[in-house]
Amino acid sequence: MKPIRKPFFMVNPKSYLCGKNLLNLALAADAAAMGKDFDVFFTAPFVDITRIAENTQNLIVTAQHMESIKMGRGMGHIVPEMLVGAGARAVFLNHAENSLKLVDLVQTMERAKEVGLYTIVCADSIAEAKAIAVLNPDILLCEPTDLIGKATISPTSYIQQTIQQIKAINPDILVMQAAGIRTGEDVYHVIMEGAEGTGCTSGIVCADNPQAMLREMIDAVEKAGKAGGK
Amino acid sequence: MKPIRKPFFMVNPKSYLCGKNLLNLALAADAAAMGKDFDVFFTAPFVDITRIAENTQNLIVTAQHMESIKMGRGMGHIVPEMLVGAGARAVFLNHAENSLKLVDLVQTMERAKEVGLYTIVCADSIAEAKAIAVLNPDILLCEPTDLIGKATISPTSYIQQTIQQIKAINPDILVMQAAGIRTGEDVYHVIMEGAEGTGCTSGIVCADNPQAMLREMIDAVEKAGKAGGK
Amino acid sequence: MKPIRKPFFMVNPKSYLCGKNLLNLALAADAAAMGKDFDVFFTAPFVDITRIAENTQNLIVTAQHMESIKMGRGMGHIVPEMLVGAGARAVFLNHAENSLKLVDLVQTMERAKEVGLYTIVCADSIAEAKAIAVLNPDILLCEPTDLIGKATISPTSYIQQTIQQIKAINPDILVMQAAGIRTGEDVYHVIMEGAEGTGCTSGIVCADNPQAMLREMIDAVEKAGKAGGK
Amino acid sequence: MKPIRKPFFMVNPKSYLCGKNLLNLALAADAAAMGKDFDVFFTAPFVDITRIAENTQNLIVTAQHMESIKMGRGMGHIVPEMLVGAGARAVFLNHAENSLKLVDLVQTMERAKEVGLYTIVCADSIAEAKAIAVLNPDILLCEPTDLIGKATISPTSYIQQTIQQIKAINPDILVMQAAGIRTGEDVYHVIMEGAEGTGCTSGIVCADNPQAMLREMIDAVEKAGKAGGK
Repeated sequence: MKPIRKPFFMVNPKSYLCGKNLLNLALAADAAAMGKDFDVFFTAPFVDITRIAENTQNLIVTAQHMESIKMGRGMGHIVPEMLVGAGARAVFLNHAENSLKLVDLVQTMERAKEVGLYTIVCADSIAEAKAIAVLNPDILLCEPTDLIGKATISPTSYIQQTIQQIKAINPDILVMQAAGIRTGEDVYHVIMEGAEGTGCTSGIVCADNPQAMLREMIDAVEKAGKAGGK
Repeated sequence: MKPIRKPFFMVNPKSYLCGKNLLNLALAADAAAMGKDFDVFFTAPFVDITRIAENTQNLIVTAQHMESIKMGRGMGHIVPEMLVGAGARAVFLNHAENSLKLVDLVQTMERAKEVGLYTIVCADSIAEAKAIAVLNPDILLCEPTDLIGKATISPTSYIQQTIQQIKAINPDILVMQAAGIRTGEDVYHVIMEGAEGTGCTSGIVCADNPQAMLREMIDAVEKAGKAGGK
Repeated sequence: MKPIRKPFFMVNPKSYLCGKNLLNLALAADAAAMGKDFDVFFTAPFVDITRIAENTQNLIVTAQHMESIKMGRGMGHIVPEMLVGAGARAVFLNHAENSLKLVDLVQTMERAKEVGLYTIVCADSIAEAKAIAVLNPDILLCEPTDLIGKATISPTSYIQQTIQQIKAINPDILVMQAAGIRTGEDVYHVIMEGAEGTGCTSGIVCADNPQAMLREMIDAVEKAGKAGGK
Repeated sequence: MKPIRKPFFMVNPKSYLCGKNLLNLALAADAAAMGKDFDVFFTAPFVDITRIAENTQNLIVTAQHMESIKMGRGMGHIVPEMLVGAGARAVFLNHAENSLKLVDLVQTMERAKEVGLYTIVCADSIAEAKAIAVLNPDILLCEPTDLIGKATISPTSYIQQTIQQIKAINPDILVMQAAGIRTGEDVYHVIMEGAEGTGCTSGIVCADNPQAMLREMIDAVEKAGKAGGK
């Protein structure tokens, strides 16, 4: 798998949008990502992955969850090979709304490697992040549950402490910081503080103009990258 | 919602197939269902619902599971409105591989009604089937877990006892019998025994020629219907 | 099993108390229940069942949850035979904090019958209560989750509607009403409204004098019973 | 907390025994452990912890599972403070039959530290063991699920590889090996291979004379310890 190009950006509309509305946001992200020298991820509900993958070229289409099972009797389950077949190239795991048993996280990360999906693994605390770091995710998102959806970005000390402790265990992991990102300025700031990538949900989907906000944020990533951000 | 036309047939490929292979099976089902005076359901993994719904006209495209949550923060969850938007018209609930808490089953069935999805609800025993009957599913599938995938159809006594006990509680429910269906003959037999609908997974996907087997079964439904089966 | 004597009372300290404090409350309940012609249930955390059963004579000691498994490899699980061996004579099932899969509820209720435990089964809505009624619990507690711990008792209309709908399905079930019970007066009132039993958690454990409040409530049950309450 | 004295031994009857039979086994273990210079753990179902703790002096009475919640509304849940109050001094976590979400494992281990319980944490694979090692359990038991209850002990290479990889991450952790222990000879062998502790379930509870087998095993621990085993 190709290395992820830093500082990356994650558009994560969760389940706020689907169908045509989600496709339109994906098309705007695709246009904004064109020609950039960093990667833009775009997450989609399972039913929308195929259409978004077929209609975009510059995005790493990302599933919001998966399981470790294989093709077969699994009725209503999320099989890694299906996601890949639909066009996904990355997957979120252990998100606060889909937290995994450790034994399943281990197996699901192995399956992701097997089928060639980048893994973005979430942690609710630094202790959890350190345990996950041992398992070699591509991206580690350390975001305490009680900060999700809040309007303030993590304090600098928290950002740097997280990065330092994770890198001490496994320097290959990219550390993402996404709490409280509301504007392009937040994006710029958090990357300059050391985040190797960032992303956003409600700051985009609840903006007056989601597509404009998404462009503002992607432009801020570019600016931070040029200014020497990771 | 329109009444389901009996005796119905359920093509349930579970997670044995996806992508192009699944689409091809759906196209064959769609052709076989054309002009029939009974309903043919076709279940699909979440990632395949949109494409199958867009490319078929005579099938009730059916999701294999869903949750009761609403559009919003649900990351990696299955929101009813998304399924409808993708083209699903029915949903399986409480399948043995996705068995639900009773409180969630109640809420998810209410949500199905709200968004206009037919519900096919599974029971593992007659006791469970009777409890579910009180909740007014459209179709009730009573199939003991240890018979799933087995090569024998349920004994006549079991079929008739199930139907009688469920109808005594709620005569509006359609009772489906699907254990051990391997051939068109099995389909014909189970409908003549009183099943208001039947269906198949491994008998189709593991057949030498799945599309031919599917046609054989749908033809058998028609023949049974004409011969006076429910 | 002997019929439960109405109107029954349920002391349910949940996990607010344990060890010596819980034993003292149980001893007070035991004294208050002596000579009464109705049943008093007393729930206890698993670690406390043995000691409370050994030191009381007039209480139906009640486990707060159990599973359907049998003696054997179950590590850290709650086996019905263990509860009986420890002295429990009843068990709560499907409480809002331990809501069960329908398939497990069915099996666990069968196990309770097998080992001779009375079942108190909880429902979060009338729809759920009706489904449970089909499964023949001894006592059905219909208490919407959002009312638990609230300071108002259910409106009369709700109480009577619940009772009527449950009895229409299965007249043998005792219907318990426990939302918002804070004083002896509440106990008296809810029984006079038609509840066949009631009970209390926070009204007792958070009272200035829990033992006195418990006695007040048990006296109110007696008074209501004599006044013609169910 | 006092350091655990090596090589320790874990009597783990799971749910094979309860009540008087379990107490008798505990009394035999207590007698065998008297005067030894290594620690003997004895696990018990929740309902039996109090009685075993009250009647033994030389055992570390061990709960088979717990949760991270606090005293309060938890109905039917396992609160750490309750276990301590009942006399438990250690707790198993993440056993194959009670595998935990990573986020819960982190919080439950913190709670164990808070209340002063030793933690014995299970792993199903070396990858999982390494992630757990970062979280500082007192004892780490690495036992692939498919070996539990099997009649062969782990190969020497597996034992030494496990120990080495876990100690590389965290040398303070005691590494326990328990797969396939059937006799005193197995106990001696696995300790001489480098296990810092071992234990047994079915080898004891299914023995013709469980108490004699338990004594044989504890004697083997002593012999191995004197012979220079860890």
